[in-house]
Amino acid sequence: MSSRDPVFGWWDAPPFIGELIQSLSGRGRALFGLSSPPVQNRDLTGLAEMILSRRGEVSGAILAEAFLEAYRQASAPERDAFMRALLDRFGPDRTVLDAAAAAYNTEPSAENIARLHEAAEPRRQELFRRINFAKRGTATLVEMREHLMDMLAKEPALQPVDLDFCHLFSSWFNRGFLMLRSIDWTTPANILEALIRYEAVHDIDGWDDLRRRLAPADRRCFGFFHPQLEDEPLIFVEVALTDHLPASVDALLARDRQPLEVQQATTAVFYSISNCQRGLAGISLGNFLIKQVVNDLKRDLPRLENFVTLSPIPGFGAWLRGESRVTDSAEIAREKQRLLAQLEGDWASAGERELDQIQRAMLPLGAHYLLNVRRGNGRPVDPVARFHLGNGAQAERLNFLGDRSPKGMRQSYGLMINYRYRLGEIEKNHEAYAENGHIAATPALRKLAQPVSQEVF
Amino acid sequence: MSSRDPVFGWWDAPPFIGELIQSLSGRGRALFGLSSPPVQNRDLTGLAEMILSRRGEVSGAILAEAFLEAYRQASAPERDAFMRALLDRFGPDRTVLDAAAAAYNTEPSAENIARLHEAAEPRRQELFRRINFAKRGTATLVEMREHLMDMLAKEPALQPVDLDFCHLFSSWFNRGFLMLRSIDWTTPANILEALIRYEAVHDIDGWDDLRRRLAPADRRCFGFFHPQLEDEPLIFVEVALTDHLPASVDALLARDRQPLEVQQATTAVFYSISNCQRGLAGISLGNFLIKQVVNDLKRDLPRLENFVTLSPIPGFGAWLRGESRVTDSAEIAREKQRLLAQLEGDWASAGERELDQIQRAMLPLGAHYLLNVRRGNGRPVDPVARFHLGNGAQAERLNFLGDRSPKGMRQSYGLMINYRYRLGEIEKNHEAYAENGHIAATPALRKLAQPVSQEVF
Amino acid sequence: MSSRDPVFGWWDAPPFIGELIQSLSGRGRALFGLSSPPVQNRDLTGLAEMILSRRGEVSGAILAEAFLEAYRQASAPERDAFMRALLDRFGPDRTVLDAAAAAYNTEPSAENIARLHEAAEPRRQELFRRINFAKRGTATLVEMREHLMDMLAKEPALQPVDLDFCHLFSSWFNRGFLMLRSIDWTTPANILEALIRYEAVHDIDGWDDLRRRLAPADRRCFGFFHPQLEDEPLIFVEVALTDHLPASVDALLARDRQPLEVQQATTAVFYSISNCQRGLAGISLGNFLIKQVVNDLKRDLPRLENFVTLSPIPGFGAWLRGESRVTDSAEIAREKQRLLAQLEGDWASAGERELDQIQRAMLPLGAHYLLNVRRGNGRPVDPVARFHLGNGAQAERLNFLGDRSPKGMRQSYGLMINYRYRLGEIEKNHEAYAENGHIAATPALRKLAQPVSQEVF
Amino acid sequence: MSSRDPVFGWWDAPPFIGELIQSLSGRGRALFGLSSPPVQNRDLTGLAEMILSRRGEVSGAILAEAFLEAYRQASAPERDAFMRALLDRFGPDRTVLDAAAAAYNTEPSAENIARLHEAAEPRRQELFRRINFAKRGTATLVEMREHLMDMLAKEPALQPVDLDFCHLFSSWFNRGFLMLRSIDWTTPANILEALIRYEAVHDIDGWDDLRRRLAPADRRCFGFFHPQLEDEPLIFVEVALTDHLPASVDALLARDRQPLEVQQATTAVFYSISNCQRGLAGISLGNFLIKQVVNDLKRDLPRLENFVTLSPIPGFGAWLRGESRVTDSAEIAREKQRLLAQLEGDWASAGERELDQIQRAMLPLGAHYLLNVRRGNGRPVDPVARFHLGNGAQAERLNFLGDRSPKGMRQSYGLMINYRYRLGEIEKNHEAYAENGHIAATPALRKLAQPVSQEVF
Repeated sequence: MSSRDPVFGWWDAPPFIGELIQSLSGRGRALFGLSSPPVQNRDLTGLAEMILSRRGEVSGAILAEAFLEAYRQASAPERDAFMRALLDRFGPDRTVLDAAAAAYNTEPSAENIARLHEAAEPRRQELFRRINFAKRGTATLVEMREHLMDMLAKEPALQPVDLDFCHLFSSWFNRGFLMLRSIDWTTPANILEALIRYEAVHDIDGWDDLRRRLAPADRRCFGFFHPQLEDEPLIFVEVALTDHLPASVDALLARDRQPLEVQQATTAVFYSISNCQRGLAGISLGNFLIKQVVNDLKRDLPRLENFVTLSPIPGFGAWLRGESRVTDSAEIAREKQRLLAQLEGDWASAGERELDQIQRAMLPLGAHYLLNVRRGNGRPVDPVARFHLGNGAQAERLNFLGDRSPKGMRQSYGLMINYRYRLGEIEKNHEAYAENGHIAATPALRKLAQPVSQEVF
Repeated sequence: MSSRDPVFGWWDAPPFIGELIQSLSGRGRALFGLSSPPVQNRDLTGLAEMILSRRGEVSGAILAEAFLEAYRQASAPERDAFMRALLDRFGPDRTVLDAAAAAYNTEPSAENIARLHEAAEPRRQELFRRINFAKRGTATLVEMREHLMDMLAKEPALQPVDLDFCHLFSSWFNRGFLMLRSIDWTTPANILEALIRYEAVHDIDGWDDLRRRLAPADRRCFGFFHPQLEDEPLIFVEVALTDHLPASVDALLARDRQPLEVQQATTAVFYSISNCQRGLAGISLGNFLIKQVVNDLKRDLPRLENFVTLSPIPGFGAWLRGESRVTDSAEIAREKQRLLAQLEGDWASAGERELDQIQRAMLPLGAHYLLNVRRGNGRPVDPVARFHLGNGAQAERLNFLGDRSPKGMRQSYGLMINYRYRLGEIEKNHEAYAENGHIAATPALRKLAQPVSQEVF
Repeated sequence: MSSRDPVFGWWDAPPFIGELIQSLSGRGRALFGLSSPPVQNRDLTGLAEMILSRRGEVSGAILAEAFLEAYRQASAPERDAFMRALLDRFGPDRTVLDAAAAAYNTEPSAENIARLHEAAEPRRQELFRRINFAKRGTATLVEMREHLMDMLAKEPALQPVDLDFCHLFSSWFNRGFLMLRSIDWTTPANILEALIRYEAVHDIDGWDDLRRRLAPADRRCFGFFHPQLEDEPLIFVEVALTDHLPASVDALLARDRQPLEVQQATTAVFYSISNCQRGLAGISLGNFLIKQVVNDLKRDLPRLENFVTLSPIPGFGAWLRGESRVTDSAEIAREKQRLLAQLEGDWASAGERELDQIQRAMLPLGAHYLLNVRRGNGRPVDPVARFHLGNGAQAERLNFLGDRSPKGMRQSYGLMINYRYRLGEIEKNHEAYAENGHIAATPALRKLAQPVSQEVF
Repeated sequence: MSSRDPVFGWWDAPPFIGELIQSLSGRGRALFGLSSPPVQNRDLTGLAEMILSRRGEVSGAILAEAFLEAYRQASAPERDAFMRALLDRFGPDRTVLDAAAAAYNTEPSAENIARLHEAAEPRRQELFRRINFAKRGTATLVEMREHLMDMLAKEPALQPVDLDFCHLFSSWFNRGFLMLRSIDWTTPANILEALIRYEAVHDIDGWDDLRRRLAPADRRCFGFFHPQLEDEPLIFVEVALTDHLPASVDALLARDRQPLEVQQATTAVFYSISNCQRGLAGISLGNFLIKQVVNDLKRDLPRLENFVTLSPIPGFGAWLRGESRVTDSAEIAREKQRLLAQLEGDWASAGERELDQIQRAMLPLGAHYLLNVRRGNGRPVDPVARFHLGNGAQAERLNFLGDRSPKGMRQSYGLMINYRYRLGEIEKNHEAYAENGHIAATPALRKLAQPVSQEVF
């Protein structure tokens, strides 16, 4: 690659692109424009139009800052209105699009396809890109999508706008741009604070609890960060190093436990994964994170042999109580009733014999729920199961009373599960799952699910 | 923003997106897949198809690494063939596109527009995004476009592929993701080496010359960097701090000059801007850079009042010699002939009187060339003029024998120009230029251009 | 400076020094000595002798590591014994010292003085320097002095050992080696944790309280760090930016206060200074810290005009209750009794009128205590007063009920004081204070102290 | 360790220390003293007295800055005079010292020893420590010693001053405070520039040569840095990774050589060690550096088995030509004459047979020189030999024409030697060498030295 070529210079954009992707203004303008009054507009739609205008070409950054300021101060109804305007007024230029569609219909050449693709791009995409010129642009765009997501339930017609956010974010938050960082007790407090706020699986009860998860030698935590959101993890995973396949998160998080010497560890347990940015829902992060962390742990601690989760089964309780939309066979329904009858009051404090009975009733139903209860598209009803199985993991073992926290008892009557990421079988498992919904599971688990008659789905 | 909402979790992608932007494999897989033989394929097109296949969903990063390796080893003809395949085989799915176009024709709803836009996206866009999962993905994609650009001259049919590169890069190299860094004599050597390699305006003659441009207290250098290309500036600008409007680059770069005390500086001179990545041609970088640097300099050195360039006029020589495609009036043609006759042999070493004569002949023609000689679209013929005037700068002063280097003498018979970025007039200048090609210039310069009769363009 | 001189090389230590400061072993030896069994000795004195032996010359670092390990595992009595051994067995070589003293007595030449100085250096100084080769050497030496300080009260004969620690630390913790760092809410948690632990003036009540002191825009915190103790502040100061001279720490730290816009701030209030390393007691840190922080604040916020403290008066309560060793005049004793009589029960919650009475009785006694009550050497009895007045500050204003915390009420019945660091008078104030114990104070404060008859001291 | 003890605070220095190590001024004063005229004194001795005065207690840093400025501007004779004043006027207070000596003579108690040690400390030690308060204090003190070293040859009486510098530097540049840093092609240019300047063994011929030593995968470079001299390596070592014991530095540095794959490397060759700070001569750095680098290399590249040098024999040429002060036996003298007769003109370009003859004559003399030719104290005459053998290395192999550079030919007629750092024998070798001058050498080398009769030393 050489730029010494006498005819080549930074000004030599191929002309057709030069026109296309015109030069936009930089931040510096703040200074230049001292004479002109700063933009005080609070009309979001008007500002958005200005950003896309010729003025936006040279003063993009300053207008973007003005827009962000206005958005910050806008009321909820004003934001609602702006979201609707994004749909109504910032779609593609219909005249151009019609012409491009016509040209394509006449002659579907590569050039006409390119023109059609370009013409079909909603103007809001360029708007989003220009809003990103401002300092906290990316963060604000993520927040804007959060606002939109809250509206979607009632106004599904806004989905095309959401699609544009997704399209943009899946390009900007491409795996190649994410930075994996180790998080520990030497991490800046403002980032640790985010962990406390965003932990979604097993609540972190203040700084002392957080310290117990980060500081001991047998604990690890990793997060993905994005260059534009430096102080905000996108997603993080908490890992415990152990010498066995753990059955209970209460034991993992016990206050008085003795840390394991790292050299003794054979197993890395992913016991909590939490997303931090609701506005990035649907953007693939978790599977990349797990695989990267497995990779890095194996490199640094070659003695590690097992990479497992200790996961919640968030849908089990609702299904057991018959709250889910899935139809069970009569036999299953009976067994659910029988088990439910036992799960009254403070059952978890019952005697050993009684607990043993409950366990013998619960495990087969749990295995059945995970392996057999599917959605219309053949995927498991349980969302965490969908995630790990879709990543190529294998369902390994059910753990009775693995999570005695109020949340764990409510969600799944304390039942937990280990998924295992087994070297060399990920791709095969994923293939089988994607092809025909086949779930990788241990023979023991499969057998557990058998006594209960197979659901039709 | 709260992710504590019990029904929300990282697994809860809205389903229609979950299907759309499926989970792709991470780097970690390298480890998982120890049993399966590493991908040794050298067929670029085949690998690209594999990346887009279901296997690519879970093993995207490992396949991307394999692709990069194959691309690295590919011969020029193999790369050529791959570029053509990008056009022929990695466009949109025509069946889907036809259906979407038909639906749009029937009912141009927002939803159908969204579907049309999505359907019209060439498959190579997703391919590029997945190639980016690999470690040097971004850098390699930039190199791929360089290869493509070399082909474009002979195979203009490939332009739709180039458009897709541009579309991607203008999203990824969005101003919001660029990092401005000061470059000086404490900068890592591998980055400084890039300056020597990429300097496009005034060649840097080795490390001692570079040191003279970076180390003195009255010199500055700034570059844009991208998080994924850490060790590679994208573009950089060299700045001299002076107490006057400089007329000669030779004086600015003189070996034996005395540095100015920074407190004495009133003027920041941008005497060289160079792009480093040919594969990013057409992506707006230079105007952002200048404006940001003006901003930061003004903040740190409030006494600075003038922000000017000392710029080459790269097209002047060719135009004077009649090599350009522009048609001159007869009178201009005569004057050009007269001047050319004086510019024989080692004319720059002539006596004062003779030089004075030449200067009096050259300056009006220079002013005419800059202000009056236009392209078909009304923009100046000179590319550097287009850049700075399009950014809102003003043409300030011509400098006779401002650059006596062989390159300067060849390009423009030593003639240079200062453009001035004047606070508060940038936006107005840009507006007038964009609206009707009006060029901001000092009265003196405008007067210089008058004696020569106005060109029709 | 040139090392190109052909006769000079890194091996060319002047011979007399080469012998003197012999080459000692590095850490690397850990590797070299794989064959020889690691040192398992737990006899601290024996290990110390080994470190000073010829073996220590080449294996100093490995022996130092062994010593640190042994010290870590030693019991308190073992450590006590080692401290005594430092006194008894690691003084100077008496034979050499006697000879040097004799030579000096005979001929007090510069050379003989040098020899005497060298001969009088206790062997423990070299021991300390070699212990410092190990990884946490400096930190452990500081801890060793802490242990020694605990012994000193009962065994004052150990003071010569303490002197050697001090001598070493005042060289190693020289101002030139200290790094001032800003501490805020983005500081690593392990460092913030140290703040909570070490805050000595106004207790920090957990992480939320800490956040209130660090995160708001009108708060600052700075600490000195040492390169060898990276994660441990040596001393830190908490600063509030205000627009007035504050009278109450409770108001400064109120939970619900509104932060001030930084541009409104005119005053920097140093409301807490805490040492973190008890083992560095007596090493000058606080005065350097205050002056450096004033310097940096003034540079960054030129609008700041006042640099004041809001300080405790830790000795006032004890003096008022007659617990101090100072003899008061009969009149003062009477007034103290009168005031004490009022300070019964929950007096701070009394009505306005009663509080007013108490205030009118307390302030003159407070002013008298600060300005007139001195130690034998003419310095104030109050330690905080000694510190700030010795640094050149001026006593500014007494604040009734400035600190209503239990500690504040116990120490000084809530009374606080502002000291002011007034530009341009520091040196003069220090001079007068050092010369004849003159205390810089405002006329108002001086007048307050007058009604009470002057103490003789 | 707790500073919560209510009676302990940062102000509570044990009083006897509080007086001893009085609080000194900080940098901040620059600001405070705006009213008072800045110190413009150029009298170095007067400034030094001021620094040690009471004014220095509170304004130490500002006075230190003034002193540095004055020293910077002082002429060589002025600096000479200051060095003499350091000897004459900044020794210990003689009255105090006499009293302390008398007390010691009367009663040699630990306390009196401590007082004697303190009293014998020259005032210049405290002066140096206070000069270090200023920004470039440490660097300037190192330069001051360089100046002193230049004077020492003619004025050996100044040695006591040099001793004080050494005493200070060996405390400040203690191994525990040195930072090992890897130096490569991504290191800042200003540091790399120092390598070019300071390389003392095999000259670096500009930046391209430097790049060849740093950038290839089979090259390493490490340096010690000190926190106060961030941009200045103190000492650095250049390492080549090879798969054999190298015999020629010319081959190691050949322009056109092929880099070795790092995985193939079995041997780390230390082919150049250079000190950068002449003012630190005599301070142990090199042996620590080698051992630390061996340690780190072995950790990162466990396949490395051999740690050897390829070293010059700087004294061999002078000894061969009879220029050294060592007396040889008649037989040796004859052999030297015979060999010298062959080393005429461009002998290194002679035919194979002739070179073979020369080699057979030179190697035994080389071995004899290294193993048998000693100084009065039984240590080898050759300085590089003293260094490596004193560190516990073993003399391994002589290499004929290992260094054909002009410098190599002049110093030692091209002869080089490998020293080997053999795991597990360092300590034993050092012990034997230190005890009775025994040199560790291979049998082959020892045999080579035999034919030549044993020197008496």
